Amino acid sequence: MAEGMGDLPGTMRAVVLTGFGGIDRLEFRRDHPLPAVGKGDVLVRVGACGINNTDINLRTRWYDRAGGEALSEEVGLRGVDLDGTDAEAAGSWKSEAVPFPRIQGAAVVGRIAAVGAGVDAARIGQRVILDPQVRDLSLPPRAQLQAYLGGERDGGFAEFVAIPAENACAVDSSLSDAELATFPTSYDTAEEMLVRARLSAGETVVITGAAGGVGTALIQLAKVRGARVIAIAGSGKEDRLRALGADAVVARDSADVLGTVRAITGPRGADVVADVVGGEMFGALLKMLSRGGRYSTAGAIAGPLQQIDLRDLIYKDLEMYGITCPAPETFRRIVHLAETGQIRPLVEKTYPLEALPEAQAEFVRRRHVGKLVIVI
Amino acid sequence: MAEGMGDLPGTMRAVVLTGFGGIDRLEFRRDHPLPAVGKGDVLVRVGACGINNTDINLRTRWYDRAGGEALSEEVGLRGVDLDGTDAEAAGSWKSEAVPFPRIQGAAVVGRIAAVGAGVDAARIGQRVILDPQVRDLSLPPRAQLQAYLGGERDGGFAEFVAIPAENACAVDSSLSDAELATFPTSYDTAEEMLVRARLSAGETVVITGAAGGVGTALIQLAKVRGARVIAIAGSGKEDRLRALGADAVVARDSADVLGTVRAITGPRGADVVADVVGGEMFGALLKMLSRGGRYSTAGAIAGPLQQIDLRDLIYKDLEMYGITCPAPETFRRIVHLAETGQIRPLVEKTYPLEALPEAQAEFVRRRHVGKLVIVI
Repeated sequence: MAEGMGDLPGTMRAVVLTGFGGIDRLEFRRDHPLPAVGKGDVLVRVGACGINNTDINLRTRWYDRAGGEALSEEVGLRGVDLDGTDAEAAGSWKSEAVPFPRIQGAAVVGRIAAVGAGVDAARIGQRVILDPQVRDLSLPPRAQLQAYLGGERDGGFAEFVAIPAENACAVDSSLSDAELATFPTSYDTAEEMLVRARLSAGETVVITGAAGGVGTALIQLAKVRGARVIAIAGSGKEDRLRALGADAVVARDSADVLGTVRAITGPRGADVVADVVGGEMFGALLKMLSRGGRYSTAGAIAGPLQQIDLRDLIYKDLEMYGITCPAPETFRRIVHLAETGQIRPLVEKTYPLEALPEAQAEFVRRRHVGKLVIVI
Repeated sequence: MAEGMGDLPGTMRAVVLTGFGGIDRLEFRRDHPLPAVGKGDVLVRVGACGINNTDINLRTRWYDRAGGEALSEEVGLRGVDLDGTDAEAAGSWKSEAVPFPRIQGAAVVGRIAAVGAGVDAARIGQRVILDPQVRDLSLPPRAQLQAYLGGERDGGFAEFVAIPAENACAVDSSLSDAELATFPTSYDTAEEMLVRARLSAGETVVITGAAGGVGTALIQLAKVRGARVIAIAGSGKEDRLRALGADAVVARDSADVLGTVRAITGPRGADVVADVVGGEMFGALLKMLSRGGRYSTAGAIAGPLQQIDLRDLIYKDLEMYGITCPAPETFRRIVHLAETGQIRPLVEKTYPLEALPEAQAEFVRRRHVGKLVIVI
């Protein structure tokens, strides 16, 4: 029996996803049962939960669809050519393991309300930020991911969420819950992209989707490392990206993005590309890299099926890294950077729980810089 | 003035490439001037020089062509779709730095005949095997390559070749020059593929082009590491590949190569793919990999312009490595493995220098297993 449950209600408010599809599959409920608190788990009373691409991608089944095409609701995302797609494209990352109704929400900040067997009851009341990657640490590092909070297990768009105790990191900060909830998912993903790409002081990094959640994190984290940042984003966001630290900003819809970036880097090219967009620009991104350059990607919202020229990879001795499972130490580093004020929260707007559908509709319009956050 | 030159003739026999194009651009000459021996160089009397893909790729300008399509002489290689190719595809690996006439030949074994200023004259007479990568060690590891023997500088299809002294590795072996000449280019490239992919004991590696020079090297070097080898090659070569150590052989023209490999690996997939073929199979190769798997490539003779599903890269946390510049220590490790008999030379056939055109014609038919070698 979990400790601390006696003081809690039997049901809670939550937004549940009733199936794959449009925003109309999100339903607000006042009487959803509280999550079960297993051995080794903690139950967290949610203070705030940030919205991320993963919420949209799971709902729209983007991970599974053969072409990875965007749904029509997702304005601003280019479709991709479906010719030559592969029915097996989903491979080993399909989302068939998701039972409905499912509570989404990966970026949770709150306080521990109860603890399961084997967890120190002294943690009840502790302020925590949740690492959304539930891992099996007995497996090799890249194979540890067992469940993503809000994906293979219920997440934070609710009053309570249960998670293994080691995923609930104590946090000591003067930032609000909404501010802290901007960090998980985006910043740990961004930091892992730079860790694997070994971005170091004095190097040049090109960042795509620079105005988004991961993009704005990448800008800040690259500056923490002392790198020079070239940010690619939709036009009209230049000033905000420069204020975050971007040394140069290139409009995504420029006639010649590759040429513009090359004019900045010189013929040597960039040391690292950190990409979260994919799409038709992918081929040009490899051409922006110097010999020995590193390409790191954590998303392909503009289209995952792209042409690669293997000669870019081979004859420049490039390295490419896909990132979906940051290491536990990467998340802890983000908590440390947040506690010490080395990274800044970017809250674009907050919404109450009931307004999650409205918030998601705003999110997919991609007019924001920084995060939309649900405050419970 | 170089020491040792007094005993040498003023001209030599050589096969020169007179320009990019077909085999008819190779000309045998009896009166080619001896190479200049610069400060820090050694002059090597060539005993044998192996034939490699890089000779063909340079001659046919494969490195530069927008589509990377094979010339019609190269039977057995599939063409690639040129739609959507990029005039800038050549990027930073074009071969414009090649002046003609050029002596090709990257895989040289011989004896030091003369030494330039600053090199110990006691090395004259030493038996050496040449590391074909001429490097600037003051640059970062992946950016060190300055010239490839037989590419940006004259190579070994001649009686003599000049090279920086540090590239001439002393070798102590009972193997013949022709046998030792099977190792450079193929084995150092293969070993570097496995080094970067961190292939370790007990892991499973899928090797494409397994009957070729790099492929047969990969099989042996993967077995030295204690890995399980699944070899993909043209049909009819199964017995020879098994004899080299392949645990399983899959015919490249099987109806369902991906399914056949999966039946061997199980649903978990392979830990590493070592690819030298590219072509239409590329997409399937990423799907053969396990979560956290590593893809390593050093060639794409079946076509470099391929479709990639970035979701394979991202959601399996894959790593991809292009290899064109092995580290100096990788070459020294190959010399050590050859000296200690841990890798075997595979000489398919030897030819005299004058027969280089005939040997190249045989090479591009791709009916061989192992190496064709010119013996001077």
